[in-house]
Amino acid sequence: MFFASDNTGPAHPQVLAGLGQANEGYAAPYGTDELNLTVRERLRSLFEAPEAAVYLVATGTAANALALATLSRPWDTIFCTRQAHIEADECNAPEFYTGGAKLTLVGDADKLDPDTLRAAIGSKEFLGVHGPQRGPVALTQVTEMGQVYSCAEIAALGAVAHDYDVPLYMDGARFANAVAALGCTPAEMTWKAGVDAVSFGATKNGCLGVEAVIFFDPAHAWEFELRRKRGAHLFSKHRFLSAQMDAYLEDGLWLRSAQAANASAARLAEGLRGVPGCTFLAEPQANMIFARLPRAAHQRLQAAGAVYGLYEGPLGEGAPDEPLLMRLVCDWSCPPDAIDRFIATASG
Amino acid sequence: MFFASDNTGPAHPQVLAGLGQANEGYAAPYGTDELNLTVRERLRSLFEAPEAAVYLVATGTAANALALATLSRPWDTIFCTRQAHIEADECNAPEFYTGGAKLTLVGDADKLDPDTLRAAIGSKEFLGVHGPQRGPVALTQVTEMGQVYSCAEIAALGAVAHDYDVPLYMDGARFANAVAALGCTPAEMTWKAGVDAVSFGATKNGCLGVEAVIFFDPAHAWEFELRRKRGAHLFSKHRFLSAQMDAYLEDGLWLRSAQAANASAARLAEGLRGVPGCTFLAEPQANMIFARLPRAAHQRLQAAGAVYGLYEGPLGEGAPDEPLLMRLVCDWSCPPDAIDRFIATASG
Amino acid sequence: MFFASDNTGPAHPQVLAGLGQANEGYAAPYGTDELNLTVRERLRSLFEAPEAAVYLVATGTAANALALATLSRPWDTIFCTRQAHIEADECNAPEFYTGGAKLTLVGDADKLDPDTLRAAIGSKEFLGVHGPQRGPVALTQVTEMGQVYSCAEIAALGAVAHDYDVPLYMDGARFANAVAALGCTPAEMTWKAGVDAVSFGATKNGCLGVEAVIFFDPAHAWEFELRRKRGAHLFSKHRFLSAQMDAYLEDGLWLRSAQAANASAARLAEGLRGVPGCTFLAEPQANMIFARLPRAAHQRLQAAGAVYGLYEGPLGEGAPDEPLLMRLVCDWSCPPDAIDRFIATASG
Amino acid sequence: MFFASDNTGPAHPQVLAGLGQANEGYAAPYGTDELNLTVRERLRSLFEAPEAAVYLVATGTAANALALATLSRPWDTIFCTRQAHIEADECNAPEFYTGGAKLTLVGDADKLDPDTLRAAIGSKEFLGVHGPQRGPVALTQVTEMGQVYSCAEIAALGAVAHDYDVPLYMDGARFANAVAALGCTPAEMTWKAGVDAVSFGATKNGCLGVEAVIFFDPAHAWEFELRRKRGAHLFSKHRFLSAQMDAYLEDGLWLRSAQAANASAARLAEGLRGVPGCTFLAEPQANMIFARLPRAAHQRLQAAGAVYGLYEGPLGEGAPDEPLLMRLVCDWSCPPDAIDRFIATASG
Repeated sequence: MFFASDNTGPAHPQVLAGLGQANEGYAAPYGTDELNLTVRERLRSLFEAPEAAVYLVATGTAANALALATLSRPWDTIFCTRQAHIEADECNAPEFYTGGAKLTLVGDADKLDPDTLRAAIGSKEFLGVHGPQRGPVALTQVTEMGQVYSCAEIAALGAVAHDYDVPLYMDGARFANAVAALGCTPAEMTWKAGVDAVSFGATKNGCLGVEAVIFFDPAHAWEFELRRKRGAHLFSKHRFLSAQMDAYLEDGLWLRSAQAANASAARLAEGLRGVPGCTFLAEPQANMIFARLPRAAHQRLQAAGAVYGLYEGPLGEGAPDEPLLMRLVCDWSCPPDAIDRFIATASG
Repeated sequence: MFFASDNTGPAHPQVLAGLGQANEGYAAPYGTDELNLTVRERLRSLFEAPEAAVYLVATGTAANALALATLSRPWDTIFCTRQAHIEADECNAPEFYTGGAKLTLVGDADKLDPDTLRAAIGSKEFLGVHGPQRGPVALTQVTEMGQVYSCAEIAALGAVAHDYDVPLYMDGARFANAVAALGCTPAEMTWKAGVDAVSFGATKNGCLGVEAVIFFDPAHAWEFELRRKRGAHLFSKHRFLSAQMDAYLEDGLWLRSAQAANASAARLAEGLRGVPGCTFLAEPQANMIFARLPRAAHQRLQAAGAVYGLYEGPLGEGAPDEPLLMRLVCDWSCPPDAIDRFIATASG
Repeated sequence: MFFASDNTGPAHPQVLAGLGQANEGYAAPYGTDELNLTVRERLRSLFEAPEAAVYLVATGTAANALALATLSRPWDTIFCTRQAHIEADECNAPEFYTGGAKLTLVGDADKLDPDTLRAAIGSKEFLGVHGPQRGPVALTQVTEMGQVYSCAEIAALGAVAHDYDVPLYMDGARFANAVAALGCTPAEMTWKAGVDAVSFGATKNGCLGVEAVIFFDPAHAWEFELRRKRGAHLFSKHRFLSAQMDAYLEDGLWLRSAQAANASAARLAEGLRGVPGCTFLAEPQANMIFARLPRAAHQRLQAAGAVYGLYEGPLGEGAPDEPLLMRLVCDWSCPPDAIDRFIATASG
Repeated sequence: MFFASDNTGPAHPQVLAGLGQANEGYAAPYGTDELNLTVRERLRSLFEAPEAAVYLVATGTAANALALATLSRPWDTIFCTRQAHIEADECNAPEFYTGGAKLTLVGDADKLDPDTLRAAIGSKEFLGVHGPQRGPVALTQVTEMGQVYSCAEIAALGAVAHDYDVPLYMDGARFANAVAALGCTPAEMTWKAGVDAVSFGATKNGCLGVEAVIFFDPAHAWEFELRRKRGAHLFSKHRFLSAQMDAYLEDGLWLRSAQAANASAARLAEGLRGVPGCTFLAEPQANMIFARLPRAAHQRLQAAGAVYGLYEGPLGEGAPDEPLLMRLVCDWSCPPDAIDRFIATASG
């Protein structure tokens, strides 16, 4: 019963097999491997963006920090939510990579709202050289709280960003889960909605460690390459990043894996609805569930060895029916019987 | 005939197999995987350093830059050679990670010399707050030109560093090749010789992408962890770094692979001695050869598809007997027949 | 009628005279001038802090950024208000000088509140290496909105900071005005209330450009000196910083000037109370007034050439009785007749 | 007998008087003072550069670091001499302000040589993303060893820089002394010779603390303004920087002061020629002398209270006739009798 995160699950066998196939003889290093050419072309094709600049890195934080640094100047401020991974979970990596840009937190909600965003960007107007300058807008899709922006919602944010002449960046650590949830194309969810650059996350969805960074305007390409190298994120044996991504794209594995994860989360949510005292923070839309269960249910689950995020506590003290917040995440490999056992144990 | 670099070779099957074995079910993320505990313990044991702080990262530049940043302050200068990887090949990663420390190049030779080092460190004496402050000494073992410091040579550098109260760092991208060449233990080549921190490179020697950073004084541990996270080098699915390193340590694979690479280079060097006009920059000691061959020999090799570093040129113009510098590197997988064909082709 | 800022006023004649007196013959450079020794001793004495480390810089932003960088590590977050000068008015100088630390905005009020602060610092607890680490708490005294923390309020913030083992920094750009308002001693308002480091602003209060940075724990001294030099804030002809500060401390000029500025603001506030439609954002406590006047009053004032901060607008459109927010600042030199004319003009 | 540095001398009375004149009433802050408009126009006129972007800062290191940061990217390397102030005397300020650019030391001589420079820049060619990228060339005029580049020498360096499409920066801490020595115009020594940006030093030549930074291509203007603010080098009471510079430009004070300093140094050098055992490192050209005197002469001088830079020692031990290196600097205020006493004392 492992629901702690989709980064605790295994790699998909097809991805491991891809590593094996790539492990033949000599391959040029540092991103000059032929497989990288293939992968870049496949990603351009998937995004219907023949001119896009495409790069691979091994971690989601590297993708975010390098992309935002490329889109920012050190005196800028980046607009994001209070819960954004770049704000809360990256130990100041964006500040480090940008050379000291600031993050301005917009609103208190899980999703950026166009009006609140407009007010926040607009408020930087009168400060001249004294205040931070306007920098990129960054959204996370799927959001940190498991919600999915519709393409129209993204486009509304893009419109605000472009009104102020700043780029829109999408942290797509769970990009595939969002596409699976929306039933749209990668292009519709990105450049067609005004996204200027995106990370196409693969690690959480069946790879070992690989993310693509895609700039729809290739003007940023060379700067990104220098930043990646300087950040120590250019792999010498780059073929092993290429191979993961290649396998991930093969036969739509990326989408199938996300569909499987989302379906597992839906099954889990459906079961939780029947658990007495269960309430959802919001309707689950992709592969993450934020919900409250009574303390007693948590106690049963933990005793049974369930692993997941429990945000309110401590567990040991208080009324048995007090609701406590949890996060449950399903990955592509989530076994149905673990879901069913979780529900049964929670039900008591 | 691929001799461009040991980072162009494949991973060892034992390492790939290790990935497969690690790919079972759930594993805690971000370095909290159980296999990481095992690996850290194995490395402490290998280095006879039960208190050492041990971390895994995916690239050699990350290992160097993070370790040096942990050992430095932004107003320091790091002492290294003109050819050092941290100076010439990392696109200012050390300057970036340290927050603006400087590199002071010591002498013109491939190896640091204790007397020249002492003069260089000493010369920073009178500058007070105006000049850079004394920071770590960094050596590369095997050196960038393929030479190997003896343990006594390392100890002499360590003595100078410690006289000035600065740490000695070893860039061990080819650590195993040096141990294989010297026939010493990892402890003898590091802390017993005054090394305060070392990168234990595995990527070039049969892994996909993993290096250990080892601080013999664990006081630096927590800062390193923060720097690694902030640098986006903490893997979420960390088990796949652990698994590579675990397989690399299993049954002495690390040493056997290095011995194989060194033996291939020795065979290649031996053959080259018989090639008319071949001269060595220095006697090859590990798995790299720097030598000059006549232009005509290079032309034959390139026509035959040999891949290696050619530093003088252009190849197309000039006298056929003019000697041109090349770098040849052998990895663990280097096929004997490729060596023999290279020699035969060079001989004409 | 110049009420735009206390940094638009002249230097006090006594300070200019001090420059002249210091301008005799040779003086050792870079802070080794004898007058600097005197000044440092005078400041230690004024603060009843014989062990304090004391430094001079030329701008308030330099004082803040260098002090906070000395008290922080790059992976920290600094706790301050949304209006704090370090957040809103320094073009990311704190992020630059700290090497990428973050600022966490605490509450929406002008003053830090101990409970809100405790909640903010406490919320960083569970993030381990992922989130920013806890860094200094920074308050501004006089606040950006013209309010003055009592010594007890400061002590309450200091207690929270020290509970979490982080330092308390005071941006004292208007330090003297606060002391004048409270009638306390510099020691009571700083280290006796838990302040670990403070900037003792002099520029706004009658100098040309000089601020002292005082660390009550001298352990930070050498690091600060290196940071100051590296930041290009160590003056070669340092005697001219020393001379300003020396004159500023002579015969209590610092306090008299602040008392004069505060008295001018009180006179202005008193007069404004009689202006129809005038409302105060808060009761003025030092030398700054935030108040609203009807649009028509502003129109009369601007027509008469009054210079001050008008934050709501544009002035030209809208109802004549609509209240619009302004900031008025008095410095030591504020002429009484300018105050009276301002009131008369506003009254119409 | 004070010859330690031109930054140990007093400000010129005309400059102090300028401060007094500027100290009337209200002046807009942060560089928006009217006097700044005047000064900027005067400098554009002096340099015959009507489009130039002109800024004032208070220290020479700020001028250098901010200008180089504006001309560089963090992955660049800046080409300069081993003795350059930016390398040896700024505690890594260039690395800090550029965000981690590197300095490549070109040759061992006091002056940059075009051929050596070309070789150094050219050698960065083959490294692609791995090595640092080519950044600005920085020369110091007057050099750190007191020599003066001719306009033709500067033009030759500019030609090399522009061949590689990198800018040429001049650290003009002693700009006026060089103009006085060459008898040329500021334009001839800068943009007419290929200089893209220059610091026009005034501190050492009779001001308290002010330097102008001039970009002949104003495209850099806004970035510089942001960098200056972020670096805490934008003065709130900016009128006092303007006033210094205004007085410095009035009636050719800048040139007269430099001529006086150079004349003093010439008188001192002429006298030293007659001192037994005196040898010059190079023929003095401006206001600095590097020469060796016998140990006994130094002992007499120090006993008589002479203050100057002694670079070889310790003084107390060794043969009386052993020559020891010294640096002597004359400023605008150098009294003739101090020069004569120095010579007499040295002569014994």
